[in-house]
Amino acid sequence: MKEIDLRSDTVTRPTKEMLQAIISAKVGDDVYKEDPSVNELEKKLADMFGMDEALFFPTGSMANQAAIKLHTQPAEQLICDKWAHVFNYEGGGVSFNSGVSCKLVDGDRGMITAAQVEENINPPDFYHSPLTSLVCLENTTNKGGGACYDLEEIKKIRKVCNSHGLGLHLDGARLFNALVAKGESPKEYGKLFDTISVCLSKGLGTPMGSVLIGNSDLMKNAIRVRKVLGGGMRQVGFMAAAGIYALDNHVERLSEDHKRAKEIGNTLAGLTYILKVESIETNIAIFYLKDASNEESFMKQLQKENIRISNMGQGKLRIVTHLDYTEEQHQKFLQVLKGIQF
Amino acid sequence: MKEIDLRSDTVTRPTKEMLQAIISAKVGDDVYKEDPSVNELEKKLADMFGMDEALFFPTGSMANQAAIKLHTQPAEQLICDKWAHVFNYEGGGVSFNSGVSCKLVDGDRGMITAAQVEENINPPDFYHSPLTSLVCLENTTNKGGGACYDLEEIKKIRKVCNSHGLGLHLDGARLFNALVAKGESPKEYGKLFDTISVCLSKGLGTPMGSVLIGNSDLMKNAIRVRKVLGGGMRQVGFMAAAGIYALDNHVERLSEDHKRAKEIGNTLAGLTYILKVESIETNIAIFYLKDASNEESFMKQLQKENIRISNMGQGKLRIVTHLDYTEEQHQKFLQVLKGIQF
Amino acid sequence: MKEIDLRSDTVTRPTKEMLQAIISAKVGDDVYKEDPSVNELEKKLADMFGMDEALFFPTGSMANQAAIKLHTQPAEQLICDKWAHVFNYEGGGVSFNSGVSCKLVDGDRGMITAAQVEENINPPDFYHSPLTSLVCLENTTNKGGGACYDLEEIKKIRKVCNSHGLGLHLDGARLFNALVAKGESPKEYGKLFDTISVCLSKGLGTPMGSVLIGNSDLMKNAIRVRKVLGGGMRQVGFMAAAGIYALDNHVERLSEDHKRAKEIGNTLAGLTYILKVESIETNIAIFYLKDASNEESFMKQLQKENIRISNMGQGKLRIVTHLDYTEEQHQKFLQVLKGIQF
Amino acid sequence: MKEIDLRSDTVTRPTKEMLQAIISAKVGDDVYKEDPSVNELEKKLADMFGMDEALFFPTGSMANQAAIKLHTQPAEQLICDKWAHVFNYEGGGVSFNSGVSCKLVDGDRGMITAAQVEENINPPDFYHSPLTSLVCLENTTNKGGGACYDLEEIKKIRKVCNSHGLGLHLDGARLFNALVAKGESPKEYGKLFDTISVCLSKGLGTPMGSVLIGNSDLMKNAIRVRKVLGGGMRQVGFMAAAGIYALDNHVERLSEDHKRAKEIGNTLAGLTYILKVESIETNIAIFYLKDASNEESFMKQLQKENIRISNMGQGKLRIVTHLDYTEEQHQKFLQVLKGIQF
Repeated sequence: MKEIDLRSDTVTRPTKEMLQAIISAKVGDDVYKEDPSVNELEKKLADMFGMDEALFFPTGSMANQAAIKLHTQPAEQLICDKWAHVFNYEGGGVSFNSGVSCKLVDGDRGMITAAQVEENINPPDFYHSPLTSLVCLENTTNKGGGACYDLEEIKKIRKVCNSHGLGLHLDGARLFNALVAKGESPKEYGKLFDTISVCLSKGLGTPMGSVLIGNSDLMKNAIRVRKVLGGGMRQVGFMAAAGIYALDNHVERLSEDHKRAKEIGNTLAGLTYILKVESIETNIAIFYLKDASNEESFMKQLQKENIRISNMGQGKLRIVTHLDYTEEQHQKFLQVLKGIQF
Repeated sequence: MKEIDLRSDTVTRPTKEMLQAIISAKVGDDVYKEDPSVNELEKKLADMFGMDEALFFPTGSMANQAAIKLHTQPAEQLICDKWAHVFNYEGGGVSFNSGVSCKLVDGDRGMITAAQVEENINPPDFYHSPLTSLVCLENTTNKGGGACYDLEEIKKIRKVCNSHGLGLHLDGARLFNALVAKGESPKEYGKLFDTISVCLSKGLGTPMGSVLIGNSDLMKNAIRVRKVLGGGMRQVGFMAAAGIYALDNHVERLSEDHKRAKEIGNTLAGLTYILKVESIETNIAIFYLKDASNEESFMKQLQKENIRISNMGQGKLRIVTHLDYTEEQHQKFLQVLKGIQF
Repeated sequence: MKEIDLRSDTVTRPTKEMLQAIISAKVGDDVYKEDPSVNELEKKLADMFGMDEALFFPTGSMANQAAIKLHTQPAEQLICDKWAHVFNYEGGGVSFNSGVSCKLVDGDRGMITAAQVEENINPPDFYHSPLTSLVCLENTTNKGGGACYDLEEIKKIRKVCNSHGLGLHLDGARLFNALVAKGESPKEYGKLFDTISVCLSKGLGTPMGSVLIGNSDLMKNAIRVRKVLGGGMRQVGFMAAAGIYALDNHVERLSEDHKRAKEIGNTLAGLTYILKVESIETNIAIFYLKDASNEESFMKQLQKENIRISNMGQGKLRIVTHLDYTEEQHQKFLQVLKGIQF
Repeated sequence: MKEIDLRSDTVTRPTKEMLQAIISAKVGDDVYKEDPSVNELEKKLADMFGMDEALFFPTGSMANQAAIKLHTQPAEQLICDKWAHVFNYEGGGVSFNSGVSCKLVDGDRGMITAAQVEENINPPDFYHSPLTSLVCLENTTNKGGGACYDLEEIKKIRKVCNSHGLGLHLDGARLFNALVAKGESPKEYGKLFDTISVCLSKGLGTPMGSVLIGNSDLMKNAIRVRKVLGGGMRQVGFMAAAGIYALDNHVERLSEDHKRAKEIGNTLAGLTYILKVESIETNIAIFYLKDASNEESFMKQLQKENIRISNMGQGKLRIVTHLDYTEEQHQKFLQVLKGIQF
């Protein structure tokens, strides 16, 4: 039987229909901005979020890093949760690419509050401290187990940013999961953030690519930043066409991933060897073994069934549901979980 | 009639056969290094050049910038021709990404000599001056009109590098053009350079991607550098498969591009309105109008025939032949050139 | 009466004897390393700490920043307390000068434990995360109210650093306060740290200057780093001579500053308007008003008596004793504190 | 007899009168901007050049590097002569501190023309190339042998900068030499440049320090940049007081240094072993031995007389006259030159 890969929603392969969209794409040289598929994808996303412009990037890391560069000057500081992807999993890029430091906030499952933002802003006239110039949020949160922000809290954070002249960037690698889970609209987010990155290769299931969306005052320099980071590709419309297809066909179905993640959570919650399952809002389930020393045995019993999940250490484990995780695989996985023995 | 686009060899679109290779590719998540097509392409190129390792990048700029980062420390200096692509056309990346300065050498059509390298090395003990740590060559030269290095000169440069402890990087965006034009082998280059970038989306005709090739001592950190620059993509094997196809099928045919470029040069040389045609070694022809004020008229007369070329200013013009430039287009272009009138 | 300035120990002016040492100094061009006073100061400190080399810097910030640069590569990460001076009060220099990020640890009064260091080291093979390469401690802690590390804890941290291949830097801006307070010797610190910065213009009372001390493997590049940061001065032996004088005459007397700080603390502890006084180990006293809204009135009543202290906001206040704070000023200040009324 | 040191005008030691000014200085903590001597020096220079503000720096390198940072964004490009001090002798700081590249221009004795500036500006809309944002001039030129710009050429360069939106910075390490030599006024320069650095420790003879002068729009961030580079010192008014004294007493006398340099040049021109003496405009004389192989012997014969000069290699030599080079030393040196034999 085919491998069941629940390590991440990045492992998906294009469907037949998406492959057809790829092969049929009209392409051109995107460095000259002449690739019609890239241009169409960028316009589609800018319109969807009600923002001025969008730009295609090879990866979500580059889209985030470019956004941070657009918002900041070297030596300045941004505020983010201590688990933020931009700080922890982009290779140290905030300091490397932008010369910017991160004021780490002790949030709740990766989410921070307006009050926390306010108390972490450095006094602008005290030049010993770095100037705070940006707040970065993540929705849904990766290391926070797919948790979704309350839109009201984001509105409060926006107000704090406004009153202190700070930019507000959203790492929306899994934003479509949040939108579907909470019944929110892209335009609500477009109004609140200065820049938003969305990933096409996680839940949406394309081979590669992320898009940075924003208003013209900031985005006018985005193509320069993409160039200097080495992100200006040629006939990349093949990949953009997959993105257009995904936006048209793979957004609503994210609710299936969420439903399955919750079913996995419910099953886990009933198992004697499980200590705790974090609350599941989208497609990520984080849970803990009662006895951390069973970790290796647990992973091995899954491997025997050709199942892969993420081991975060010390008895903490993570599964992520996605497009390639079928109902058949799901039923099998639930069965396997119930059969684990130590 | 279809547009004749001679601005650059980056404008090519995949052939039907290459599209078939793309659609048939086996893919995986390359961030986990599980994409079989990417892995195959990397191994193929490492073997071809007789070097330890290779790594796929979204662009040639990122491959070059990563190489420069691997070779240098911030504040150090590299030596390159004053026309070098890494200095002039990568968005200022050498200083931005690596904090490194470029000692610009006044070369011949983009090529520098071992003697010039030697006299531009800063004294290592005089700490007022940046430490020289790298030499970057380009072959063929872009702004130098596709000129090819003499392999003997490169050997001398290698010796200078060895005796001063300098790294030697080759920007091989169009290296396959040089190999075909001069009958040289990749392995001769693999022996002389520490790192080599090759581009798959110029003469080879793939949609996107470049590969950095090198030995393990330097390359072991390449994946970290690619990550921090935002170049770690997912199921990018679709694009790698195009690269494999191109290496198998599109290398030898570069001689056709060269033949046509030379024929264009010969035609131009016989025209009364042409001042001079630079010597043509590969697929780039640079030429000058006798009367620079005819530039606009010249470009317009070509446009009327749906022909696009590059205007480099002050009567200097550039054409680049490539995979999508057919014999039919070629005959038409030669006719049009002969019919231009001022 | 002369102003009583308790904002910081940086405000001291040279004594007559120190001025005499300044004016009598033999000087030369330190860029050529020909300034005998600078050379003598550097040797004196290297010997005092039992380390190979020392280098004079215009400021403690530059000495710390240079040390961080010597220890790290761009994109790497260092571990420090969330209140660390290098993160909070050096203008964002860690990211600006070195491209390095700071993993902020929630320590106790600015001090972190070996266990906290260990759990904040990123896995070296997981290239998504920045490579952890350095731990920075501060002794005494500035924002932690002059707290002193337990030498045994530092030894444990050193072990953790050794087993993970991390460097260990000490921001010793007020290290002599710790040495005097705890009866420790410089050589004990020289054995534990790779680099140590000491400041001459705080408790030691010189006009300017800090010195970075370390072993040759790291320090051999220190002069290059100082140059690129713009710290290579000329006849700066005048200032170094003040440092030599201070090391010979102003170290033991730090105990007077400590005694007075503790007396201030005792007085404060007995006052009805004081909520809490942080434990006082050296020359810094941090305390809180019972009613934060009295802050402005408190500061004004002090100002009326020509007394300046630091207001850290929200009812938190700081005083720092030093060389220029005389016994007469001390008795006056204690009286004034007792007379404050709201 | 005392050593005659003609290597550089940086080697001067304070006169008795300057030492008296140092010892009598009123000082305070300049990090709080409370040092009256530093404040006075800064105001004096701002007024002298008719500009808004000035800021004291520990070194001329830091003043230049801070200016470049104030003018530019990372990845941008500045234009300077190929011999420029900012490119060649500040440790690679332009790329290290600002992430900026230098377009090197082939000037005349370190001086470039308005036409050269114009043709080296990158097209602003072609985002492959770094954005040109700054021009740096040097007056007098260091490696150009103390040559002085024609003020009319600077005016033309200013016009080019204005029409392309470029900043214009002057590295005025030896600007007072130019002012005295050409009978020009500081205010003429204040009108033409956006920022000017002047050095107090070369011809003016103070122990250390440079000042950056400019208008408020740029200079408002200068103190932040100085902080992040580690240049915020404490009671540095002692050194500033030397600067005030030098501006009042050591400017006009630079003409003596110029006279002696020219006399040395005239003597050299008449010697059989001299190939060529570069034209001498200020206090630097560059000359060439007829037979480069006599270099070592030449230096040794000088050393025997306790005379030090700079050997630039391949028979090229440099002397710099200054405040500590007395008439007596001068006569002796001229005699020694005449007696050299190979």
